[in-house]
Amino acid sequence: MNLRLQKLRKLMSEEKLDAVFISSLQNITYLSNFSGFTTEDRDAYLLITQKKQYFFTHEIYKEAVIKTVQGFAFIDIKREYPISSAIKTLVEKHRVRRLGFEDFDLKVSEYEQLTNQISKKILVAKDLIGILRIIKDQEEITAIRNACKLGDQAFTYICKQIKTGISEQELAIKLDFFIKLHGADTSFATIVAFDKNASMPHHVPTAAKLKKNSLVLFDFGVKLNDYCSDMTRTVFFGKATKKQKTVYETVFAAQNKAINLLKSFLINHKSPITASEIDKIAREHIIAQGFSPIPHSLGHGIGLNVHEFPRLSPISEEKLASGMVFSIEPGIYLPGEFGVRIEDLFAIKNNKLVQLTNAPKNLLEL
Amino acid sequence: MNLRLQKLRKLMSEEKLDAVFISSLQNITYLSNFSGFTTEDRDAYLLITQKKQYFFTHEIYKEAVIKTVQGFAFIDIKREYPISSAIKTLVEKHRVRRLGFEDFDLKVSEYEQLTNQISKKILVAKDLIGILRIIKDQEEITAIRNACKLGDQAFTYICKQIKTGISEQELAIKLDFFIKLHGADTSFATIVAFDKNASMPHHVPTAAKLKKNSLVLFDFGVKLNDYCSDMTRTVFFGKATKKQKTVYETVFAAQNKAINLLKSFLINHKSPITASEIDKIAREHIIAQGFSPIPHSLGHGIGLNVHEFPRLSPISEEKLASGMVFSIEPGIYLPGEFGVRIEDLFAIKNNKLVQLTNAPKNLLEL
Repeated sequence: MNLRLQKLRKLMSEEKLDAVFISSLQNITYLSNFSGFTTEDRDAYLLITQKKQYFFTHEIYKEAVIKTVQGFAFIDIKREYPISSAIKTLVEKHRVRRLGFEDFDLKVSEYEQLTNQISKKILVAKDLIGILRIIKDQEEITAIRNACKLGDQAFTYICKQIKTGISEQELAIKLDFFIKLHGADTSFATIVAFDKNASMPHHVPTAAKLKKNSLVLFDFGVKLNDYCSDMTRTVFFGKATKKQKTVYETVFAAQNKAINLLKSFLINHKSPITASEIDKIAREHIIAQGFSPIPHSLGHGIGLNVHEFPRLSPISEEKLASGMVFSIEPGIYLPGEFGVRIEDLFAIKNNKLVQLTNAPKNLLEL
Repeated sequence: MNLRLQKLRKLMSEEKLDAVFISSLQNITYLSNFSGFTTEDRDAYLLITQKKQYFFTHEIYKEAVIKTVQGFAFIDIKREYPISSAIKTLVEKHRVRRLGFEDFDLKVSEYEQLTNQISKKILVAKDLIGILRIIKDQEEITAIRNACKLGDQAFTYICKQIKTGISEQELAIKLDFFIKLHGADTSFATIVAFDKNASMPHHVPTAAKLKKNSLVLFDFGVKLNDYCSDMTRTVFFGKATKKQKTVYETVFAAQNKAINLLKSFLINHKSPITASEIDKIAREHIIAQGFSPIPHSLGHGIGLNVHEFPRLSPISEEKLASGMVFSIEPGIYLPGEFGVRIEDLFAIKNNKLVQLTNAPKNLLEL
């Protein structure tokens, strides 16, 4: 019996939902273990009732899905029998009076089609699987750890490729290729940023060529067996300036303050700490040193998605607890000059903080 | 003056829309020329009124966007001032009484937030930019043609990498790497399928190793300067069986029938042909030879997205016209045995059919 389905059904009972309709690809993967769909098209949905689970897909995916997915009833969706009609049939068959759906994922047009077939009144926006996914099981933490290990290796590899004249794009390609050659994929578009490009947290690599005495920021992730890693390192090709060193040490100290607060809390307290408190200590350190506040959250949960719960942000109300996996990634950005970010992933396992990314993060002058 | 904005405003007048709210990334790229956002997060929106155009984004993207995008007013979106509040302010300022929005893209939760701020009554689901994007301008066709050229080169390259023992995954990686080394990206996850895996139109490459006398299907696309290519070739490593040859020739003939019907129509008729008629002639040829009907559409439009309008399907009501770019890709799939698909891209330019992908497609035994 699928343990995840069991947990979901327990939550469904608590929320008095007779069924849940699932449209988001990662939630489909989480419950069915199948991940072969493209994000661009809408080729799969699930319906979970207390007793049965249904997998809806197009004929072109059927052979692959049936091979991999066990314990689901398969229903073809076609133009003549769209998902809205399939849901109507099952809602009537199972007498569903409260149907959960994913309002964060479902498109307005899909919702309109659905509510042409079934009453709006039975639809309840609830992401129960999102709640389940915040707490990772042992298998998931291992999967993320393996993705992080490959990320560490990729970082070691890419540091050796840094040389005069190489472009951001070339370094990004080499990094991606290393990851793919090791049987994985990238979990998001790799960022490589030189000098002033590093002041843009989501910089897209350009043809800019590397000169001696430059800053190089790498922000990249590995997706291995569907689970994501994410790490950022800022290194120096040649010598760092005094200002760069100060900024680097400030970011590094901010990260350490967050890590140490969390560690001491886990050791000394039985009650959980709020994610916003971790964000706060790093944020305030950076401000206290005279720099602008971090223009993003200190960190984010990670798993099947690169960004998931918990959020480590000033307004986060989530408590950090065993089974959570998240990034801690302070940064300082000086437009027109440069930027520094250091990012690692952590898991809380049996009330202990475990660092999953382990690439060196002392100031590297290569 | 941005010609695309001009055309959009003309359509807005015709549809009596005072403004349009744009959330889909490709439509944002189409109007603003900026494509640096990730698909996972919602980091950008546009609002276009008859007189002004607004670009909403997060602080972390601001520096990059302002550098690239011209003629837009920039508005920061933050937790304290979400997009729904920004839209409310502008709807009031410009006295918008009918606001177009993209129901095919907007999430239900975003819609709910928006309608907490502005009346549902002013919202009108309309994809005006989708309508504009069906007809490509010269610059767009050139961009797609360039992507196709690189795709042709990638195919020539990958044919030389085919050898005993290489896996589907390794071939996919090599293909992707070739594309990236040439300054482009893949436009979707590359498909490499050997023998019976080729019977699944959306197969995900596996560690399966190539043996002599096997069928190899490649379906891949290049994304170059934001525009996509898409092509499929089925080749034979060693000898094709008699049955494989028959299937290949049937698919090839089906594609040619579709191409020739379209060509003769463009030469002989002034009035446009319906996309479904092109689908029909290929579909019927395959059925007439005793094979199962194609389990997908014969073709699809392509541009900033891999799949866009027009659709060449049995129920398509679109007329094919100058400026359209689309695939023609019949296939025969024999579960447990093998599959064959041949796919090329075509543009209609000044009422002439131009083939954009030009890799060889006679039956290749390598």
